Amino acid sequence: MMRHARVACFGSVHDAVEIDGRLKLTDGRVVKPADVVWLPPIQPETIFALGLNYADHAKEISFKAPNEPLVFLKGPNALVGHNGQSRRPVDATHMHYECELAVVISETARNISYDDAYDYVAGYTIANDYVIRDYLENYYRPNLAAKNRDDLTPIGPYFVDKDDISYPMQLGLRTYVNGELKQEGSTRDMVFDIPYLIEYLSSFMTLNESDVILTGTPKGTVHVYEGDEVVTEIEGIGALKNTIVGDSVFAR
Amino acid sequence: MMRHARVACFGSVHDAVEIDGRLKLTDGRVVKPADVVWLPPIQPETIFALGLNYADHAKEISFKAPNEPLVFLKGPNALVGHNGQSRRPVDATHMHYECELAVVISETARNISYDDAYDYVAGYTIANDYVIRDYLENYYRPNLAAKNRDDLTPIGPYFVDKDDISYPMQLGLRTYVNGELKQEGSTRDMVFDIPYLIEYLSSFMTLNESDVILTGTPKGTVHVYEGDEVVTEIEGIGALKNTIVGDSVFAR
Repeated sequence: MMRHARVACFGSVHDAVEIDGRLKLTDGRVVKPADVVWLPPIQPETIFALGLNYADHAKEISFKAPNEPLVFLKGPNALVGHNGQSRRPVDATHMHYECELAVVISETARNISYDDAYDYVAGYTIANDYVIRDYLENYYRPNLAAKNRDDLTPIGPYFVDKDDISYPMQLGLRTYVNGELKQEGSTRDMVFDIPYLIEYLSSFMTLNESDVILTGTPKGTVHVYEGDEVVTEIEGIGALKNTIVGDSVFAR
Repeated sequence: MMRHARVACFGSVHDAVEIDGRLKLTDGRVVKPADVVWLPPIQPETIFALGLNYADHAKEISFKAPNEPLVFLKGPNALVGHNGQSRRPVDATHMHYECELAVVISETARNISYDDAYDYVAGYTIANDYVIRDYLENYYRPNLAAKNRDDLTPIGPYFVDKDDISYPMQLGLRTYVNGELKQEGSTRDMVFDIPYLIEYLSSFMTLNESDVILTGTPKGTVHVYEGDEVVTEIEGIGALKNTIVGDSVFAR
């Protein structure tokens, strides 16, 4: 089992692997996880995210599950590492976390069949695809202001190699708010599974190494507020922690 | 007046400027435009595109103009240079061109006011934001399959410095299909103008150097077909040519 991280410490940014609860940098130095700043473990060129990809969640927010994957793009500005801060705008009433399995692409992929799709997966990490639902208005409305705000998508802490996850479509997902379990689901309840998504996306566009697909969230999203500590956890991959801050900590 | 291009010739990729109808490479060599492969003149990290940003076009496709900018993101896979090919899928019935002014950001921008917005503009180029309307289904449906296909967004040929365009909100836009004028409009009819868009986007996310905003298209989009030559032209910036090819030229 090899868990990879990208961290800042000793004045620079490093790749690292986890060994017995410590981080070993590429140059051999070993540090405690508490002594680093965690960065997103991957640096994707294109970030895909799925809407309504768990039927129970679609029902929860009063949509029926789509007939085709409902995919949108996110900008790199949205990503933030483990132990980071995400911002709740003062006028928001509906800020929800979303625990999601993030699937990382291994190499250039175009016209990939369902059966070959896992050959193009490098591995997995965890994303919390927060949404400010207030800004997700209606009809024909892409969700940039709702989903693509700076630092609104925590990701990490670890990237885990594909071979270390035997059954990616049977992983438990859990979200804790201030230590209390609020969301629980399994990747087996995805409407469109991992190979289907890779076949679908690669049918009209080229996927590249490090591109990432955030595969959607199960039901159980609740409002979160300034000061909340939100932990999204996926079986075999790890636990991603984030703290919600208010507008007041940002100067204008 | 300085028009910048990015081209491939003599075995490598070069920045170039236009001088009296020829291209002068950074190293001083001069080439004829016909002897190069034109690449997208900019390499943005984040590509924004506007839906329904000209009231007449919104009306044309039966939508009312939105109350807030309707922005979505595109991946870098979508961009293709001048004289490139864009692909019309065999099952498409509604493939439309869209002539659009592309606004390029000059530097990191966050919380920029309307009045300061042009300080963050580097310059302009032309985009043809093709859409396969068949795939633009309905309600709550981001338009990835409709708008983000490989090579579906020609851009170029030139990037023009901001200072060379005195009135960006009064530029004529024209599209010709096989030499025939099919679309005509002016940037003055935008619903949300350039400074508004920069203020809006930078209110919730950081814009970076080379990021680009495709500002929407006026009315007059018509179906285009395999073999069509489509030229999108913007006053003072240039004319961007593209040819539509069918699925048959692509191996599977």
